[in-house]
Amino acid sequence: MLTRTSSQSLTGQLADRFAERIRNRLLAPGARLPSVRECARQQGVSPHTVVAAYDQLLAQGLVEARRQKGFYVRDAAAVNGTAATSMSFVSQPAAVPVVAADASTLIRGMFHRPSDKPQPGMGVFPPDWLESTFMPAALRRVTGAKSLQEFSLQYGEPAGDGGLRRSLSTKLARINVPAGPDQIVTTVGATHALDIVSRTLLRPGDPVMVEEPGWALEFARLEALGMRILPVPRNADGPDLEVMARYCNAGEGHRPKLFVSVSVLHNPTGYSLSPGSAHRVLQLANQHDFHIVEDDTYSHLAPEHATRLSSLDGLQRTVYVSGFAKILAPNWRIGFLAASPDMVGRFLETKLITTLTTPSLFERALAWCIDQGQLRRHAERIRLRLDGARGRTVKLALGAGCTLAAEPAGLFGWVDTGVDTDALTQRMLDEGYLIAPGSLFHARRPPTTLMRINFATGQDAAFWKVFARVRDQL
Amino acid sequence: MLTRTSSQSLTGQLADRFAERIRNRLLAPGARLPSVRECARQQGVSPHTVVAAYDQLLAQGLVEARRQKGFYVRDAAAVNGTAATSMSFVSQPAAVPVVAADASTLIRGMFHRPSDKPQPGMGVFPPDWLESTFMPAALRRVTGAKSLQEFSLQYGEPAGDGGLRRSLSTKLARINVPAGPDQIVTTVGATHALDIVSRTLLRPGDPVMVEEPGWALEFARLEALGMRILPVPRNADGPDLEVMARYCNAGEGHRPKLFVSVSVLHNPTGYSLSPGSAHRVLQLANQHDFHIVEDDTYSHLAPEHATRLSSLDGLQRTVYVSGFAKILAPNWRIGFLAASPDMVGRFLETKLITTLTTPSLFERALAWCIDQGQLRRHAERIRLRLDGARGRTVKLALGAGCTLAAEPAGLFGWVDTGVDTDALTQRMLDEGYLIAPGSLFHARRPPTTLMRINFATGQDAAFWKVFARVRDQL
Repeated sequence: MLTRTSSQSLTGQLADRFAERIRNRLLAPGARLPSVRECARQQGVSPHTVVAAYDQLLAQGLVEARRQKGFYVRDAAAVNGTAATSMSFVSQPAAVPVVAADASTLIRGMFHRPSDKPQPGMGVFPPDWLESTFMPAALRRVTGAKSLQEFSLQYGEPAGDGGLRRSLSTKLARINVPAGPDQIVTTVGATHALDIVSRTLLRPGDPVMVEEPGWALEFARLEALGMRILPVPRNADGPDLEVMARYCNAGEGHRPKLFVSVSVLHNPTGYSLSPGSAHRVLQLANQHDFHIVEDDTYSHLAPEHATRLSSLDGLQRTVYVSGFAKILAPNWRIGFLAASPDMVGRFLETKLITTLTTPSLFERALAWCIDQGQLRRHAERIRLRLDGARGRTVKLALGAGCTLAAEPAGLFGWVDTGVDTDALTQRMLDEGYLIAPGSLFHARRPPTTLMRINFATGQDAAFWKVFARVRDQL
Repeated sequence: MLTRTSSQSLTGQLADRFAERIRNRLLAPGARLPSVRECARQQGVSPHTVVAAYDQLLAQGLVEARRQKGFYVRDAAAVNGTAATSMSFVSQPAAVPVVAADASTLIRGMFHRPSDKPQPGMGVFPPDWLESTFMPAALRRVTGAKSLQEFSLQYGEPAGDGGLRRSLSTKLARINVPAGPDQIVTTVGATHALDIVSRTLLRPGDPVMVEEPGWALEFARLEALGMRILPVPRNADGPDLEVMARYCNAGEGHRPKLFVSVSVLHNPTGYSLSPGSAHRVLQLANQHDFHIVEDDTYSHLAPEHATRLSSLDGLQRTVYVSGFAKILAPNWRIGFLAASPDMVGRFLETKLITTLTTPSLFERALAWCIDQGQLRRHAERIRLRLDGARGRTVKLALGAGCTLAAEPAGLFGWVDTGVDTDALTQRMLDEGYLIAPGSLFHARRPPTTLMRINFATGQDAAFWKVFARVRDQL
């Protein structure tokens, strides 16, 4: 909030707030600033203050005035003072023309916590949910001076710590994904695993099917790699098979090479794949010869008998990817991929050229957490707690006038606010809250009334009170 | 060595040895196995044993027999049972047509220590050189339960730990590279930094100038990204400027976009850039508008007033990359890049889409090591010790009949053995030694009589005795 007691003028405070948001890309290039009157009303200041603040932004080169239209955020190139890589794609029949870097900059903005308030837009559990005594204990075990020197002073195994790969192999067997330790490669989080898979299997210009809505970073990565994104609507029981079939039949040069899927507890909808849908997706993959990368990031929150493509397929044309950011420690950056013996060597080579090896310390500590059963019990506790939180958050959301766009499950809720969530995002930021607008989950980022909420951080009545007030003002 | 007392037959031992080497790519696809007579003589077994062993390899599908020519390692696709990504490049005037994955697989092989003997082919200091009391102390400081939970349970700052970036900024100022903490992005080792720079600045097919000889992983990465590699001979005082000028004048479509340079203590030659050469390289870059990425991996071993392009240029068109694998702990995987304020945001976005954030634990521990002056003193001790080792290794190498192809400096010696070092590598592996043949440092990997030796691990008289014997037998 702007304060009159600050040593800085209201004008200065307002200009700084916009400037910071533009630099952090929470206000995207091309976005229109609120009109002077609108802004004055929202902020409870005089129009004169707003005009003066906008003038400062103009002088700083962050915005431009368009005659009769208002003030617009200048494009990234201008803001950065450098020419942005212009990634333009030939728009094939069903392909989406996209501009790179936008989503990743938005995500980058999401790392700036606007305040200490609970942030229902965040993608992870709040730190206090993840606190445990076993995690520091695991790290102490592997940092004894001798062990520490031993693993620190050599590059380590290219595929990742052998002990961890054995633990993961056993863990995967429990969900019927058959992968020996030699079929597993550890990575810097699931993000790195997905990057390795794309870089290894695809060439620039290749068509890739991605679920929509879907995780913005996946769109951004594929865009940056120069891939042609084919969005596949995600329904409650799986991807839209008719749309997939149409892509597959689009002719030789347009044949999709890869399908990227979050089959279980899909982000942002919480949907999980049905066995029937899984079977048909695999049939299509066999028939049209494409690979599938199954992103099982929410694995630890999944119901017990969840269906996974990799399990049905036995890792023939599927590559399984998961990580531990959601359940153990986001900053440890441990992910992994599991693939057929035929393919795993190629992924390992890509790992080598991108990061050489990965740090063994956390890999060894994680292996201990898995082997001792600590991680499993921790995940059970979190699932129980999440079940309670989900109920409370849903009640609050409905009470604030939202409707549910998907059956609530897992960490995220996909809710309809009834208003444009891009505009809502800006106003909520003024109040110190970061929300995740629906546009973030689409390749084209069209305006939408949907938003993703984190059930763990969404059970705060104060947030919903502010939300309802701001939404009604829009 | 093959042993008659083993429970396994000599034939089985010999076949297994070749099979392992083929799988680890220490015998590259297309390589010819020694003739039966040659192999029998080398291994001290009967020709019958060799024929039986080769038959086993044939049966396993690892080699193929070519009529009248002998046995050849089958190509990677056949060995892996999968079609290798065929990366074929349009060979422009001076460009080198290359096949991806070969170098990275060779490097992958280099992670397999063939025995416990000192390995003069390795690229790092032996672990006992890097042992220290301050490194575990630093880690203990940052793993106090409170601090550990605090940083583990959140993703962390996208650009990397703020404290480390401040320390690095100060450290860079001492070598006259002007970079504020906001111009620095931490990475998973220097490898990741170089990958980020290439991915951000280049599009597939772009011509890139790379020093030759040079580090194999750099060639492999650029090949995998689909770049057109323009090798620039590296001379004692810097890159061959005439060759660079020819590339620059090759016409609009062929204009190089980037020059990758290890200016100080170049790998494998140990050469350092002269101020005059640095000035002319930068003139060329300005004139022909290309970027330069300066890989300063050997920074900690460098003489005090070493010339760096980034310092002359003030990070205008240069990007500075370095890391701590060589001096502190290879497995911590900490590297970083420093760039102009204009460019750093784009690199940060590429970091986000490749690994999201990087682990803070090691970054904080490293910051402590730098801030306390421990790292600087440690580097001084290692430089002194290396000076002694270098003298001894050079004497042994000359004594074994090698000549020096470059003035000895830094960690690596570039020596001429007088025989083909690819063949030598295979025979030395039989003896339990891994050496680094000169072909590894060329984009085309032509046969050469040169090899790179590690001065720290090369001061072992036993190695040179075996070396001289094996070389004389070739």
